[in-house]
Amino acid sequence: MNIPEDARFSDQIAFLLEMDRMKNIYRQTYVLHENRKENDAEHAWHLAMLALVLHEYANEPVDLQKVLATVLIHDVVEIDAGDTYAYDEAGNVTKAAREQKAADRLFGMLPPDQGEYMRRLWDEFEAGSTPEARFAASLDRIQPLLLNYTKHGLSWKEHGTRRSQVEGRIEKIGEGSEKLRALAGDIVQKAAEEGLLKNE
Amino acid sequence: MNIPEDARFSDQIAFLLEMDRMKNIYRQTYVLHENRKENDAEHAWHLAMLALVLHEYANEPVDLQKVLATVLIHDVVEIDAGDTYAYDEAGNVTKAAREQKAADRLFGMLPPDQGEYMRRLWDEFEAGSTPEARFAASLDRIQPLLLNYTKHGLSWKEHGTRRSQVEGRIEKIGEGSEKLRALAGDIVQKAAEEGLLKNE
Repeated sequence: MNIPEDARFSDQIAFLLEMDRMKNIYRQTYVLHENRKENDAEHAWHLAMLALVLHEYANEPVDLQKVLATVLIHDVVEIDAGDTYAYDEAGNVTKAAREQKAADRLFGMLPPDQGEYMRRLWDEFEAGSTPEARFAASLDRIQPLLLNYTKHGLSWKEHGTRRSQVEGRIEKIGEGSEKLRALAGDIVQKAAEEGLLKNE
Repeated sequence: MNIPEDARFSDQIAFLLEMDRMKNIYRQTYVLHENRKENDAEHAWHLAMLALVLHEYANEPVDLQKVLATVLIHDVVEIDAGDTYAYDEAGNVTKAAREQKAADRLFGMLPPDQGEYMRRLWDEFEAGSTPEARFAASLDRIQPLLLNYTKHGLSWKEHGTRRSQVEGRIEKIGEGSEKLRALAGDIVQKAAEEGLLKNE
């Protein structure tokens, strides 16, 4: 696509077409009503819907627009760096460096003002340094839990996921939302009782 | 999912799980990097990214948060009503009634304050009655055009789409954004020259 004549507009359109790749990055979580995994574009949309509906449960007052922008862009780096499964220990060692490089390239496609804005949102998300970043991270962790539990633990069973691994991950939900942290605890409890998660 | 004990929270979670169905409603447009059609969740996410990057080109000043919320929820009614292809004349006769009924059920799952908020956004989107609704509609029409053209007109060829049909649809883009209307015109011109759209 090389149609717009002004450079700013042309760069914006090129970035937005590059974003289409998010539709082909598959996560470990299954969608509920087809036998296939969820991709990053669907996941980001679902998080944005969670943000619209659940922002009243953020621990601290949040700017909803900023939460929305954060969840919309939070996985964009996976276009280059791929999805790293939460419980993949080897992958998580190299994840940060791969993602920094991806952020340089991808946000660098935009006009500088917009690229810097998105990069700042992503850096804040990674660092958990703002109320919006912490709440976005809570949503990012509760959403797969809701899907995995509703899907009868399919993804957990495939990976032999242990209860303690999930408990480690949900701890952080409380930094953005105690209400969602409590829900996550209840879900893990029920999932363990129902044999969807391995006890040690 | 019947875990949260308070009714408001429980209704919100049930709505958000119902939203997962958006991932299985397929549109006529193809994604760029796989041989499959785009679903409504991916489409809504992509529109939200367009909103983040292109809102400076709205004809009138827009509240970005409202544009984001509008594009995120604009196709939710298709969970019950299905996707109606833009150039399906028979389907478009019954579309409005099917979608009104779907909006009643789906937004009715939410606590009344949130259901009424989303219903109002959707009604405004359908009517084009606010600057945000008109800009959201512009995004909703330019996005498939960008994808179809970049995908070498695959969807147009499948449907034998005529240039005049697309020209009819892009006219409305100008109500939300003259800049995007001009881009759409350029794309249609190139698509016709390249034989991707049928001349009459």
